[in-house]
Amino acid sequence: MKVNGTPYRSIWYDHDAAEVRIIDQRWLPHDFRIAPLKSRADFTTAIYEMWVRGAPLIGVTAAYGVAGDMARDPSDANLDAAWEALNATRPTAINLRWALDRCRAHLAPLAPADRAAAAMQLAHDMADEDVEINRRIGQNGLAIIRDIAARKPAGEPVRLLTHCNAGWLATVDWGTATSPMFQAAEAGIDIHVWVDETRPRNQGALTAWELNSHGVSHAYVTDNAGGHLMQHGLVDMVITGTDRTTAQGDVCNKIGTYLKALAAHDNNVPFYVALPSPTIDWTLRDGVAQIPIEERNPREVSHVQGVGSDGTIAEVQVTPQGSDVGNPAFDVTPARLVTGLITERGVSPASADGLAAMFPEHASRVA
Amino acid sequence: MKVNGTPYRSIWYDHDAAEVRIIDQRWLPHDFRIAPLKSRADFTTAIYEMWVRGAPLIGVTAAYGVAGDMARDPSDANLDAAWEALNATRPTAINLRWALDRCRAHLAPLAPADRAAAAMQLAHDMADEDVEINRRIGQNGLAIIRDIAARKPAGEPVRLLTHCNAGWLATVDWGTATSPMFQAAEAGIDIHVWVDETRPRNQGALTAWELNSHGVSHAYVTDNAGGHLMQHGLVDMVITGTDRTTAQGDVCNKIGTYLKALAAHDNNVPFYVALPSPTIDWTLRDGVAQIPIEERNPREVSHVQGVGSDGTIAEVQVTPQGSDVGNPAFDVTPARLVTGLITERGVSPASADGLAAMFPEHASRVA
Repeated sequence: MKVNGTPYRSIWYDHDAAEVRIIDQRWLPHDFRIAPLKSRADFTTAIYEMWVRGAPLIGVTAAYGVAGDMARDPSDANLDAAWEALNATRPTAINLRWALDRCRAHLAPLAPADRAAAAMQLAHDMADEDVEINRRIGQNGLAIIRDIAARKPAGEPVRLLTHCNAGWLATVDWGTATSPMFQAAEAGIDIHVWVDETRPRNQGALTAWELNSHGVSHAYVTDNAGGHLMQHGLVDMVITGTDRTTAQGDVCNKIGTYLKALAAHDNNVPFYVALPSPTIDWTLRDGVAQIPIEERNPREVSHVQGVGSDGTIAEVQVTPQGSDVGNPAFDVTPARLVTGLITERGVSPASADGLAAMFPEHASRVA
Repeated sequence: MKVNGTPYRSIWYDHDAAEVRIIDQRWLPHDFRIAPLKSRADFTTAIYEMWVRGAPLIGVTAAYGVAGDMARDPSDANLDAAWEALNATRPTAINLRWALDRCRAHLAPLAPADRAAAAMQLAHDMADEDVEINRRIGQNGLAIIRDIAARKPAGEPVRLLTHCNAGWLATVDWGTATSPMFQAAEAGIDIHVWVDETRPRNQGALTAWELNSHGVSHAYVTDNAGGHLMQHGLVDMVITGTDRTTAQGDVCNKIGTYLKALAAHDNNVPFYVALPSPTIDWTLRDGVAQIPIEERNPREVSHVQGVGSDGTIAEVQVTPQGSDVGNPAFDVTPARLVTGLITERGVSPASADGLAAMFPEHASRVA
């Protein structure tokens, strides 16, 4: 999407410089920096230290990392070494391993001399595939926004609310939850987005940065505000992303999503979840009972990062010394609270039957 | 309540030093400082700059301020001047005006020579009355906690969740929502309190400080966490305070309270609100429709205060430059989501009939 009028992806190959470049997300939303990735250490550091983040972007970054290694040494041993080094950066990231397995399966059968070009082409293809999936999610979500816009009084924007950053910075472009928003803006539909702060890590600030950079009307609000906004008719639709969706449509997403779904339900506001279908876990049904919730480092809650008065990035502790801190990172929104799942294939009801009908090739796998 | 083992009130008269002292709350939860209030400027500054906060504490502070003025100059003119100066500190605080009117009505008929002693006695009485109201609220809430404790398996604490700071720091002692917690702890009941951070102003940190200082088990969590905790059976009861309650039991409280009430309702967790009955607004019925919600300074959202790495209190900006920020400060929880209202007189159903039965002297005033 655009940054100061110039279209960007979160990762790209610069043909003039003959190097891969990324947006170094550690400095966002306060500073927009671009970093080249060249050596294997550059790629592993960028993933491990979260210069890049979001499952799709991590996978594509790893693919470019493999391509860099193949250009330097296309041997079987080095292909394995690159796989190992990149996979070790975020060992619990399923998508990372999936991307690396795909690269190795594609490259291993080839003659070493052909691997460099093939690896680079595969990385480009994986980036383009991600963009295309998200573009389709956006098209399918755009249809819903159009319907709402058609029913709004003239001059009133369609007001959306989102939680966390399911934005283009977590993908290669468009994002998931943000894709319908960007497409609506591109289509000239008047929208306004309420962006939840999303404590503890304040990823809402990234969403706000994305919308601001692209020129989409929005306001950053605390996680506490959404219920009040919905009570007063100021939200027409909620769209969030998801980390994992069960075969019956339960949605595991960043902590606090469930509270917004409850408020949407209580106020008859449609609550949609945007997702690429590979994030559906067809082996699970009851998300609340079956999905273990990660308890993360309490420091994410006790300390808040931002820009200090001297303009540098600084951290302050907000909790009293001696108080315990809890930090559950995700919650599960039961399917009964979800109006629909916006996928690249279409909008599915959040139900076992709905998902099975849209993805019949997976239906037999449902327990 | 206790701080490091020593019992404190938020304001008191030190007989040895012959001066009024307060806890200077600007430094909490990071630093515990006591400040003397002597001159009229001390009192007005302490209220205006929020060294003291919370309606009951502001009212009592003003009463001590009047007493100080009467000791220096008990004339009619000075009584009026003190009223004016103190009332101007927080002109929208109803309780401040009410306290000052009470002081003037009590003192004006007296001979000037009698006013200093009478004013000091009245301030003491008003402080004691506030303590007594909150103690009774605590007793009434304690009965509910006892019932829950009796049903819990041995060795499991009663887990409570609270939002914002309806604690003793906002009153003279005990607090409102915290009073049942402190009384349960005093009674030897094993409790654990989940303390919502309560963005944007993070008043949950004050509640955490209170509980920590008194030795009550607790954990500070983000505002997003409560729904997840309730889904997993980790909350037995919610208790919050309220700024204003309508005659039909709708509860206006710090933004985000409504979201917790929705989650409690969805998980069959009892949701109680603790309040002194004078905060019931008998002229209002439908809180969502009738209570205007204050939109506060966006800087409260965009900037977060805490302790920096050098140990001094500092502020960081968390929002991107250029993003709009919304800051609705309160929301309204409809009575249908409230299990009961814990008042100094007893626990009332959150309904017009329930409140009218408990406060028959007000029932005729209901519209």
